[in-house]
Amino acid sequence: MLIRPAVASDANAIWGILEPIILAGETYPLPMDTSREEALAYWLSRENAVFVAEDNGEIVGTYYQRQNQKGGGAHVATCGYMTAPWASGRGVARAMCSHSLDRAKANKFRAMQFNFVVSTNARAIRLWQSFGFVMLGRLPVAFLHPTRGFVDALVMHRHLFDTA
Amino acid sequence: MLIRPAVASDANAIWGILEPIILAGETYPLPMDTSREEALAYWLSRENAVFVAEDNGEIVGTYYQRQNQKGGGAHVATCGYMTAPWASGRGVARAMCSHSLDRAKANKFRAMQFNFVVSTNARAIRLWQSFGFVMLGRLPVAFLHPTRGFVDALVMHRHLFDTA
Repeated sequence: MLIRPAVASDANAIWGILEPIILAGETYPLPMDTSREEALAYWLSRENAVFVAEDNGEIVGTYYQRQNQKGGGAHVATCGYMTAPWASGRGVARAMCSHSLDRAKANKFRAMQFNFVVSTNARAIRLWQSFGFVMLGRLPVAFLHPTRGFVDALVMHRHLFDTA
Repeated sequence: MLIRPAVASDANAIWGILEPIILAGETYPLPMDTSREEALAYWLSRENAVFVAEDNGEIVGTYYQRQNQKGGGAHVATCGYMTAPWASGRGVARAMCSHSLDRAKANKFRAMQFNFVVSTNARAIRLWQSFGFVMLGRLPVAFLHPTRGFVDALVMHRHLFDTA
C-alpha cells in the first residue's frame, strides 16, 4: 500500500471512490445527488491536504487532512477518509488513518478530531478506537440514515502530544 | 430591539462588530489578523442566513444561521452570534438567540448545535443554558486563548422538536 499526495490527474479515480459512498448516503453528511464537480470541490478544497492510497498501482482510497478550526483552534486536525467499496477488507482505511496520524504529528498538530462519525458506521468506529480515538460526545439523532432513519453521530478525538 | 435580515448596505456595521471581537481572539476560532474582506466572506457566506439587531436605529449585533451539516445532517441548525462590545448588557445576544430559535423552528430544523463554544466564555454559556442548551461534549484544550493559554471548547445542543 502506497500513500502519496493526490495530484490533479487523480481526480477521476477520487471521484470513482467518492461517488458510490455519497450515493449510498450512509456515512457522510452530503446530499446523495452531489455532483462530480461539487464532490471534488469539497474533497479537494484548498484547505485540505489530500492523499490517495494505491494498491498495485490502483487507487483504492483517499483522505484529506486540514485544521479543524482556524485561529485559536488551528492546532487540532480533522480528516475524512474514503475507501473504495470494492477494496474493502484490505486494510486501506487502517493504512490511511496511520498515515494521517503521522502526518498530523509531523505538522505539529496537538490532536485530531472527527466531528461527525455516524453511529451506525460500526466498522469505522472500531477502527478509530483501535487507534486510540475516544468519543467526546454523542450528537443525538443528528443524521438521517437512508434506511435506519434518524441515528446519532459521534465526536471522536485523539491527543497527539502530552497536554501537560 | 429590532432583528431583521441583513442587507448589503449593512456590511460596514457588521464589520464594525466583527472586527473588535476577532481582534480580541477570545471567543471565535478565527485568526486575529482576519481582514475585513475575509471576515465578511465568512460571516456573509451564501450558506448563511444573516440577521442584524438594531437598537434605536443602531446596529448592535449580528448572527447567522445555517445547516450544520448537509445531506443526512441538514436537519440540524447552527448559528454564530456577535454583539457589539459597546452594546454589551442590553440583552442583544438574548434577543438574537430567541430570534434564531424561532427562525430555526419556522424552517423545520429539529435541533440547534453550537460546535465550538470556548469554555472561558462563561457569559455565553450561561445564556445558552438559559435557553435550554446542554453540553454534549467537551473538546479538551481545543482553543488557544490569547491570555489563558489552551482551554477547552464545548459542543452545545438543544432539540427543537420531540425526538420520538
